[in-house]
Amino acid sequence: MLRSLTISILLITTSIFSVAEETKQDSSSDAKPRHVILIIGDGMDDHQITIARNYLVGASGHLALDQMALRSTSQILTTEDKSDGKPVYVADSANTATTMATGVITSRGRIATAPGSNKAIVTIAELAQAAGYRTGIVSTASVTDATPAAFAAHISFRMCENPDVMPDVSYKDIHIGDCIDEMKTHGGTGSISEQLAESALDVLLGGGSKHFAPTAEGSSDSVRQLAESNGFQVVTTVAELQAAEIGRRTLGLFSESTMPVRLRGENGRAAEAPEPSLLNYVHQYLGDVTQPEIMNCEPNPGFASTPSLKQMADAALAHLSHENERGFFLMIESASIDKESHKRHPCGSIGEVEQLNEALTSALDFARENPRTLILVTADHSQAAQLIPNESLFAEFPIPVYSPGKLARIRTPEGGIMAVNYATNNFFMEEHTGANVPLFANDEGLGRVPAFIQQPQIFTISRDYLGL
Amino acid sequence: MLRSLTISILLITTSIFSVAEETKQDSSSDAKPRHVILIIGDGMDDHQITIARNYLVGASGHLALDQMALRSTSQILTTEDKSDGKPVYVADSANTATTMATGVITSRGRIATAPGSNKAIVTIAELAQAAGYRTGIVSTASVTDATPAAFAAHISFRMCENPDVMPDVSYKDIHIGDCIDEMKTHGGTGSISEQLAESALDVLLGGGSKHFAPTAEGSSDSVRQLAESNGFQVVTTVAELQAAEIGRRTLGLFSESTMPVRLRGENGRAAEAPEPSLLNYVHQYLGDVTQPEIMNCEPNPGFASTPSLKQMADAALAHLSHENERGFFLMIESASIDKESHKRHPCGSIGEVEQLNEALTSALDFARENPRTLILVTADHSQAAQLIPNESLFAEFPIPVYSPGKLARIRTPEGGIMAVNYATNNFFMEEHTGANVPLFANDEGLGRVPAFIQQPQIFTISRDYLGL
Repeated sequence: MLRSLTISILLITTSIFSVAEETKQDSSSDAKPRHVILIIGDGMDDHQITIARNYLVGASGHLALDQMALRSTSQILTTEDKSDGKPVYVADSANTATTMATGVITSRGRIATAPGSNKAIVTIAELAQAAGYRTGIVSTASVTDATPAAFAAHISFRMCENPDVMPDVSYKDIHIGDCIDEMKTHGGTGSISEQLAESALDVLLGGGSKHFAPTAEGSSDSVRQLAESNGFQVVTTVAELQAAEIGRRTLGLFSESTMPVRLRGENGRAAEAPEPSLLNYVHQYLGDVTQPEIMNCEPNPGFASTPSLKQMADAALAHLSHENERGFFLMIESASIDKESHKRHPCGSIGEVEQLNEALTSALDFARENPRTLILVTADHSQAAQLIPNESLFAEFPIPVYSPGKLARIRTPEGGIMAVNYATNNFFMEEHTGANVPLFANDEGLGRVPAFIQQPQIFTISRDYLGL
Repeated sequence: MLRSLTISILLITTSIFSVAEETKQDSSSDAKPRHVILIIGDGMDDHQITIARNYLVGASGHLALDQMALRSTSQILTTEDKSDGKPVYVADSANTATTMATGVITSRGRIATAPGSNKAIVTIAELAQAAGYRTGIVSTASVTDATPAAFAAHISFRMCENPDVMPDVSYKDIHIGDCIDEMKTHGGTGSISEQLAESALDVLLGGGSKHFAPTAEGSSDSVRQLAESNGFQVVTTVAELQAAEIGRRTLGLFSESTMPVRLRGENGRAAEAPEPSLLNYVHQYLGDVTQPEIMNCEPNPGFASTPSLKQMADAALAHLSHENERGFFLMIESASIDKESHKRHPCGSIGEVEQLNEALTSALDFARENPRTLILVTADHSQAAQLIPNESLFAEFPIPVYSPGKLARIRTPEGGIMAVNYATNNFFMEEHTGANVPLFANDEGLGRVPAFIQQPQIFTISRDYLGL
């Protein structure tokens, strides 16, 4: 019943953009299955990749990412929140995930809804479901977070992750927004977790169990129970994930909120402000400066208790490909490259690039066995961290030269010192940045992915590959 | 005489790396000419490109750069100044230009010399000359600046640009370094300008006349006169450049030092520090902040009096291709993308990306007429500017959120506001950054330029294309 409901929504919403008229490069009319695996490194720009590469495999080393057959760039597009808005030059993960999921450019904070209205926009996952493909979403964030949500839910404001917060999303008593008009009692489709619980997804793995604990609107059941009623088996540990009935619809909720990251700074250290001497306050060319102490990265203790991104990707691939003659669409997100960068945790981001790189090797292994598999790897937007010189280019000048922001100096396994700077703002969370971002494809992308794309083309390339 | 001297130096220095053993993809045995045009945007990373694109053609527009057939990435490699040094994670333009010119990884500040020694390393231009190709260098910097110098000179320290400074390079009475051991009176090869004057280059166009004014070591002639004795016609204005004898060796010196840039901030404004209110000094969550006023970019008055990069590129292409059955190697640099970014001048950098983009259209036009032309476009290293949100991602919080560095807010022709942040240090010049950088190629690069390269491969790809 819920599947057919979803499909009827599709048929209405599809009309807002012209799928039918466009030329298809690919056809799904033949019998063999086709697969798209879209891997998103949240905030994974060239700084994040270079910082991670330097640490993980050395300055002259290669990640699996670096060995992809094709490299392109993705032009990130964001608009003001009105139907004919001016461009906004820096995105958030909600509008960019919407663009990748739907091919439509929207405004910051929106989940698969149009700018200036709350009109739902059909997603690649919904189109694939309607055409008989299986669909899956894997993320190290809460599955209700912006990137995963935009592939299977529709709402005006990304923070409306569960029914309890719909009337008032606040942070430390500051009202941030709400989704009152989209509550079920007002004829809306409800919060993100409710929409996911009622979705036709086959696999949904990540964090965010706290968003499935509240009571669903108009029901006495929790959102988790709603998902179970909708046919999901729910797993919460690595053991349960591995013991799950293969091929059955699966919801994995492995942590309360964002999943623990793999690496952290020594004793949990973040980037820190350099400390100029008193004399330096008299004049910036006087005195001296104490730079943050050099540190190592270390394993984050919480990480071991939850599945890795690769373990989740492997499980998703097994479920989606089991006795499947049609194929699937799978989105895999390494979410905390971005989240750790907001917190000025370079070691955290490094470990999450490593997680993405490992999940990519699983995807590449799958594609070797299943050649009609298009793998796309990209970022949604660029991020705050900058790799700056540990020894300033101006070190010969007898004055203190230092970052005005926060700095981490990391000892790399190859014996270098890597300085990572965070200086986009004075807040407790860094800003995103606005550069175009890398896009990689496996050899199935050759001839399908040009050297330069606009972010909406990630949708059209995926759609065309699946013949949707 | 000077040409044969140069060639004999080559034969000695070639032995330090193994050209002979490597497989050549291309052969120069056939009769038709081959050409390599290497275009370097100094500091032109994805932030610089995106900032320039947003301003010049709009957020969803395309530069000529974006329409190149192939996009790759270049892994930047730098070492400590010793023969077996550890990696250094942020480069300068001297070591990266050396790497592109020679295929050898070296230390910051070096011009085509080996780390830990002053041993000269043969350059692609010298190899091409020895094989009968013409060679040219065009830059908006002084022709003695690091990037152009590294293709045709050899010295331990990039600031040794003319004979007068060899014993003591200083800035405001601060001794920065010297090249005493490399003075001709000590058996060395002299300063950069002297080496260029004595080089076998066919075309050398840019700024830096002040480095050709001093008396050459061991001579009563100026360095400019030394160049004239070596067969160069010297031109100093657009009119002289256009009237120059076609096909004759040409040295163009169009300004004292770096050439004037095309654009500047309104009334010459740079990025400026946001100004928090007094209360904000009590606690960062109190008070408010005055952001720098929004500004337009405007033409830089000095620019009109000198040739554009495109005019210089056109002249170089005409000279190098005139009655030339062999082919040529030409390096074209837009130098002040970097220099303006050091000075926190986003409009300046934007105009210099535009200059590069125009010179690229000249190269593409040439390649259409001369299909055996490989065009590579890349940056030498990434740079300080970051495109950050004009409206913070955290604007809903009732506290002042602002950059700890310097910020410019630019009104774009399409009506948006673009915020460019400079915050790598507190000095009067920003630092470089350490991310891998874009590499573009025309269709001659397909099958020759992989999706990921190490920066030394820019040398080997060029060398192989010319069959050297």
